[in-house]
Amino acid sequence: MYEVELKVRASHDAVRERLDALGAEYVGSVTQVDTYYDAPHRDFAATDEALRIRLESDGIGDGESTARVTYKGPLIEDASKTREEIETGVADADRFDDVLDALGFSPAAVVEKERERYALGGYTVTLDTVSDLGEFVEIEREAPESAVDAVREGAIDRLRDLGLDPDEQIRTSYLGLLLDSSE
Amino acid sequence: MYEVELKVRASHDAVRERLDALGAEYVGSVTQVDTYYDAPHRDFAATDEALRIRLESDGIGDGESTARVTYKGPLIEDASKTREEIETGVADADRFDDVLDALGFSPAAVVEKERERYALGGYTVTLDTVSDLGEFVEIEREAPESAVDAVREGAIDRLRDLGLDPDEQIRTSYLGLLLDSSE
Repeated sequence: MYEVELKVRASHDAVRERLDALGAEYVGSVTQVDTYYDAPHRDFAATDEALRIRLESDGIGDGESTARVTYKGPLIEDASKTREEIETGVADADRFDDVLDALGFSPAAVVEKERERYALGGYTVTLDTVSDLGEFVEIEREAPESAVDAVREGAIDRLRDLGLDPDEQIRTSYLGLLLDSSE
Repeated sequence: MYEVELKVRASHDAVRERLDALGAEYVGSVTQVDTYYDAPHRDFAATDEALRIRLESDGIGDGESTARVTYKGPLIEDASKTREEIETGVADADRFDDVLDALGFSPAAVVEKERERYALGGYTVTLDTVSDLGEFVEIEREAPESAVDAVREGAIDRLRDLGLDPDEQIRTSYLGLLLDSSE
């Protein structure tokens, strides 16, 4: 499966009003702290890959968090941010970081954000507040390779429904934006 | 923490009688399927490291299994098989294998064994039946670096209590023994 994902900068207050008017369903809010790693044998910036540990906690603030490791492959489709993702949970993020460290992988950057999720016509709309970057809206949906084009068209329509301009799509990841802004 | 571990070849029937006479407590039995990986950037055979995914299921045979990823560092102490181990659970072993594959790691060997565990005076005694290799007994205990010598002496004493000869210690891992036997 591929993740079809479009992202634009947007003030959240206006988008929440449109989501409400369109009958979107509020799904929940989470905080995510993503640590991205450099590999000892590949330049991920050059190969357009990523290895990430994500710590996610729900909005309740009870201190419970889950950890997942994710590999992201290179972009397979230029028109959206579509890439292969392979992901599974890990029981202890610190231990897993120790394993990566022992193998020669090292933390390269940390992206921290609050995500407010809505379901809208088969898509997930996410209102992201990213530390040091600001407010964004993402729309995404998983698709088999054969349906990537159709799912992307649907995402564009829904962005317009939300009063957003698909032409303002940002293809750079939050990680990339953070690295750009720190240069 | 370090894992101090001694291993000898031994017929299990005689050892079970000694365990019973010594008042050892039966802890449980599990089946383990270990997949060891080659790294893309290091020769683990040369660096004396290992990266493993272990699938473990209990003896009940209800199909439930847990998966853990383990990094093993080089031997830090010649007299026993003491090495640093870093381990954490993973939710989905197949997905994690996919992550490793995407990063260039590849399965090198599989070790399958049944393990019958006993507690004996602070140590764990394990009766291992290893596919293609036969019956072994391991005695092990975790220790901080400062206590490795004392813990190893204790392990030697307990091996003798079990009627086994510490001089017959096998320092080669099951993986190494399997690779040797296939050469």
